[in-house]
Amino acid sequence: MMSSRACKPFSSSLLAASKLLLKSSSRAPPLQISALVGSMVPKIQGPKNSSGFPRSYMSATLASLAKEEEVPSKAIDTLRAVEDQHGGVIVNIEEPMDSSVFASLLEDSILQWREKGKKGVWIKLSREHSNLVDSAVKAGFRFHHAEPDYLMLVNWIPNTPDTLPANASHRVAVGAFVMNANREVLVVQESNGRFSGQGIWKLPTGGVDEGEDICTAAVREVKEETGIDTQFVEVIAFKERHKSFFRKSELFFVCMLQPHSFKIQRQVSEIEAAQWMAIEDYMAQPFVRENELFDFLTKIGLSKFDGKYNGFSTVLSSTSSRKKSYFYFNNKDAGHMLA
Amino acid sequence: MMSSRACKPFSSSLLAASKLLLKSSSRAPPLQISALVGSMVPKIQGPKNSSGFPRSYMSATLASLAKEEEVPSKAIDTLRAVEDQHGGVIVNIEEPMDSSVFASLLEDSILQWREKGKKGVWIKLSREHSNLVDSAVKAGFRFHHAEPDYLMLVNWIPNTPDTLPANASHRVAVGAFVMNANREVLVVQESNGRFSGQGIWKLPTGGVDEGEDICTAAVREVKEETGIDTQFVEVIAFKERHKSFFRKSELFFVCMLQPHSFKIQRQVSEIEAAQWMAIEDYMAQPFVRENELFDFLTKIGLSKFDGKYNGFSTVLSSTSSRKKSYFYFNNKDAGHMLA
Repeated sequence: MMSSRACKPFSSSLLAASKLLLKSSSRAPPLQISALVGSMVPKIQGPKNSSGFPRSYMSATLASLAKEEEVPSKAIDTLRAVEDQHGGVIVNIEEPMDSSVFASLLEDSILQWREKGKKGVWIKLSREHSNLVDSAVKAGFRFHHAEPDYLMLVNWIPNTPDTLPANASHRVAVGAFVMNANREVLVVQESNGRFSGQGIWKLPTGGVDEGEDICTAAVREVKEETGIDTQFVEVIAFKERHKSFFRKSELFFVCMLQPHSFKIQRQVSEIEAAQWMAIEDYMAQPFVRENELFDFLTKIGLSKFDGKYNGFSTVLSSTSSRKKSYFYFNNKDAGHMLA
Repeated sequence: MMSSRACKPFSSSLLAASKLLLKSSSRAPPLQISALVGSMVPKIQGPKNSSGFPRSYMSATLASLAKEEEVPSKAIDTLRAVEDQHGGVIVNIEEPMDSSVFASLLEDSILQWREKGKKGVWIKLSREHSNLVDSAVKAGFRFHHAEPDYLMLVNWIPNTPDTLPANASHRVAVGAFVMNANREVLVVQESNGRFSGQGIWKLPTGGVDEGEDICTAAVREVKEETGIDTQFVEVIAFKERHKSFFRKSELFFVCMLQPHSFKIQRQVSEIEAAQWMAIEDYMAQPFVRENELFDFLTKIGLSKFDGKYNGFSTVLSSTSSRKKSYFYFNNKDAGHMLA
């Protein structure tokens, strides 16, 4: 169901099932950690014993040394893994392990996975298990992505084309154009960064947090930096920037927000000063005047304020998985279709 | 300078300097590999000798053992690093190194960097040097990001708040709405993915490549999948999706493209079938009918085709660094401002 939310000043009662059923969806990731089900092989890891090794692994090793006991050692001597929804498996190391033990288990496991026709094999290593990174690489794994607390490695094991999903490639940032009824725009001077100490008044800006919506991020950044409460109106323009950091790109969305409070309380740590500033004074600054694109953006903001420009506003849709999802479009031109 | 390009059916002669001077820019990354200049400490790595160690490191070790020779061992016994533009340094391991040697050098290096007031210390480890990952983690480094061929670790060493930039958080994908003069829409059936084998006709879609523009990606995907030449007209809508893969998000941009050729040549590997299909037949498919958002998107496309809807088209601006950068906005409402 589509429904209205904080980001959406515009209401509709659309939609039963509303996923965008495009190929994008079919290129879904090979797994979602929260959705992992079904252990592929018997559990081999248990509580640590005093040596720091998982007890059940130790038992398994002893068992495989004592072949006369006919313990099914082959089934035991593999890494614990769970299947994903795309024919692959994921190894999630939960207990400390010696790297040579890991290397040996990994080798045997790959043989079994290959036999079973498994495709992508994922190994998620938290920082505590970084001693195993080298063994995984030597076994043919490549890096897929990393977050502060873990590294994900992957290996496509069949002799077919690798259809593994790409890593994240972009950061998303927002800028906020907020004007009050006196045609004053909300501006800040930053404590850090390229423009600090230069007396330049800028629009509030910031990065979109993990899992955060663009329209939510703009409202949050303005609140954090200036204390002003706002409501999202529209994305009035956006910009692509490449090789912005390392090899990655950035998408920067400029949002028009409507203020609901006016008393400024600046963020002490990051913001040197914040104020409502006459739009003419803002535009008279050399850094705005001398940057045609920036000047253009301000004119778009003014046009929007005066009702002569339309950007993209939002409708919120809930997919069948109940995840909310914002759809951005020109509401002035197409809003009637949602009636 | 702004100028027109393949992505832009619309022309202007704007702008001398056109970077968006918002905070986003001031949150620039701490380094760009290509811009690294100035070796901070003397080079310690040279050609490998037969043992696989860099020869100059071996010399340095011998020198530090032979203190009576008064070799400035302190200056030599650090890792080779270059300064970045944000008060940090980057270590780029170029030759194989023993992990215990690395650990010891890293410890000494951190002491020196701290003394010099350095901030973020980056270590870039290619797959070949994955034996050093564990030592870096044990020295306090965390993962920052990873690409297939390297892992980047980072450590904020001063006693001040960590201002390191975040990792990439999004993937970007595109879908293409392409109609010919007979009101037939370009559609495909995919060989793989969720909808394969179900006879569903979908819009061409795909992922945006590293460093690729949205408008370019849409044209490329259509060409690859169907052989049809097109020109970018507009982004007619876009959609946010979270927890789309691992913890990451996706931005999906639906682009209106104008076809310049009509003979279909499908991509054999990924596309089962491709055709021009009467828009009514396309919309009559249950998967479009039963998905209100998808139905809505099609209506927006039709409105655009009939001149009743405006999305975001592009101007191409070149920043002072000569990087091209696309700015997306409602050209119908604001195009006159570029005149």
